[in-house]
Amino acid sequence: MIIIGERINGMFKDIGDAIRNKDPKPIQYWAVKQQEGGAHYLDVNSGPAVPKEERPDAYRWLVQVIQEVSDLPLTLDSTNYDAIEAGLELCKRPAMINSVPAERPKIERVFPMAVKFNASVIGLTMDQKGIPKDAENRVAFAMELVAAADEFGLPIEELFIDPLILPCNVAQDHAPEVLEALRQIKTLSNPAPKTVLGLSNVSQKSPDRHLINRTYMAMAMACGLDAAIMDANDDDLVDVCATCEILLNKSIYADSYLKVFRQR
Amino acid sequence: MIIIGERINGMFKDIGDAIRNKDPKPIQYWAVKQQEGGAHYLDVNSGPAVPKEERPDAYRWLVQVIQEVSDLPLTLDSTNYDAIEAGLELCKRPAMINSVPAERPKIERVFPMAVKFNASVIGLTMDQKGIPKDAENRVAFAMELVAAADEFGLPIEELFIDPLILPCNVAQDHAPEVLEALRQIKTLSNPAPKTVLGLSNVSQKSPDRHLINRTYMAMAMACGLDAAIMDANDDDLVDVCATCEILLNKSIYADSYLKVFRQR
Repeated sequence: MIIIGERINGMFKDIGDAIRNKDPKPIQYWAVKQQEGGAHYLDVNSGPAVPKEERPDAYRWLVQVIQEVSDLPLTLDSTNYDAIEAGLELCKRPAMINSVPAERPKIERVFPMAVKFNASVIGLTMDQKGIPKDAENRVAFAMELVAAADEFGLPIEELFIDPLILPCNVAQDHAPEVLEALRQIKTLSNPAPKTVLGLSNVSQKSPDRHLINRTYMAMAMACGLDAAIMDANDDDLVDVCATCEILLNKSIYADSYLKVFRQR
Repeated sequence: MIIIGERINGMFKDIGDAIRNKDPKPIQYWAVKQQEGGAHYLDVNSGPAVPKEERPDAYRWLVQVIQEVSDLPLTLDSTNYDAIEAGLELCKRPAMINSVPAERPKIERVFPMAVKFNASVIGLTMDQKGIPKDAENRVAFAMELVAAADEFGLPIEELFIDPLILPCNVAQDHAPEVLEALRQIKTLSNPAPKTVLGLSNVSQKSPDRHLINRTYMAMAMACGLDAAIMDANDDDLVDVCATCEILLNKSIYADSYLKVFRQR
């Protein structure tokens, strides 16, 4: 399981303020804290903290200050591909691009950039018309992304397909469709593309957020989830990731498996 | 999700003593307590508390004292089919027989008895040679049990197939095979047979029992688990059952869904 820490996001007030004020401390605090929690990647999203034309500079600054305190690879998260490219130029380790929908001009912008910088790509099972309701249409978009990886020479293991979970309190019927989509996406090619979810979406505005997150995590891992953008400091959630790896026979059982998982 | 409370079992000292001493109090205490926790059935297993020849009497007594305090249906759990039959004669509600392996003389004893008493049957994916290691052979046994239901006239919805989970600390490779078996068993017929697990087995002698149980529960429910023999008083585990029903879109979401699940 690849844990992508979600916390360095301008939607959080401390991070938004830090980006505006060029104050590295909150950024670096969360970089270290998420790594300690169990993150394998750090998601980096400026959010609306700075105007569009300043975003490339913001991503350059973010990559630099994070790399001063953490050697984790970064997931550069923006719809502004110039900002992502500016960040990629400074990344010391192969990064991840978050994200590209199954839309032709965006595919043509993102996949060659990923190949150039040896980066992975998160591909979304949606286009300009939005997110499909059922598994079948999600998988059809996934197939387009798999074909794009082949076309542009991105190794298929570097493609992470996100079948896009929605909040269960308003779009409950999507949750089982996403599980089915995960299952089918893992059969699309050999080797299979990887899968990823923005896990916290499933529980938006529900009173039992942590319970819903960790329960859906276990269900999704049983269906082939490889990675999640998530709260790397939710210890109960990280415990569930470690336990699923045991129960899928992907890590060898030891009584101390929870500790072993965090030390990897 | 059908929760079968596991606690009235002679392997627990208080229950074993109660059966030997014909003391109804501990039996009735756990009947009520498991019903309050969220149980839909109560498993009843004398264990080795009384000699073989006294078991039919023990099951008669158990059924009577439980029915004095609870109207839940019972799961009569024994390898002694005369004891099960003695209990079935007194059950006020359609019961469940736990269990029969995929072995011919036992199938011939149990299925007609189930039909006669309008009972459900838990069929095990094993024979006299033991439990297979892989999903395929578990499913082959499941197919024999589905054929037996058809042969003896047991409605297929009354057949609960148990693909037999083993402790992950000693037989870790079985855990993903059981998930795959669950998935395939749900495709064996239309309507499909139901599925069940003796959940607590997965965590035998592990230090993190509750975490392992509830994580495997979510994974198994994502793969088609319909019922579990389990600790109905493990509130965190019952919460996971309720949450999976929401995330599989089997219960309608409400902010109070955890409470609603227990009030059903």
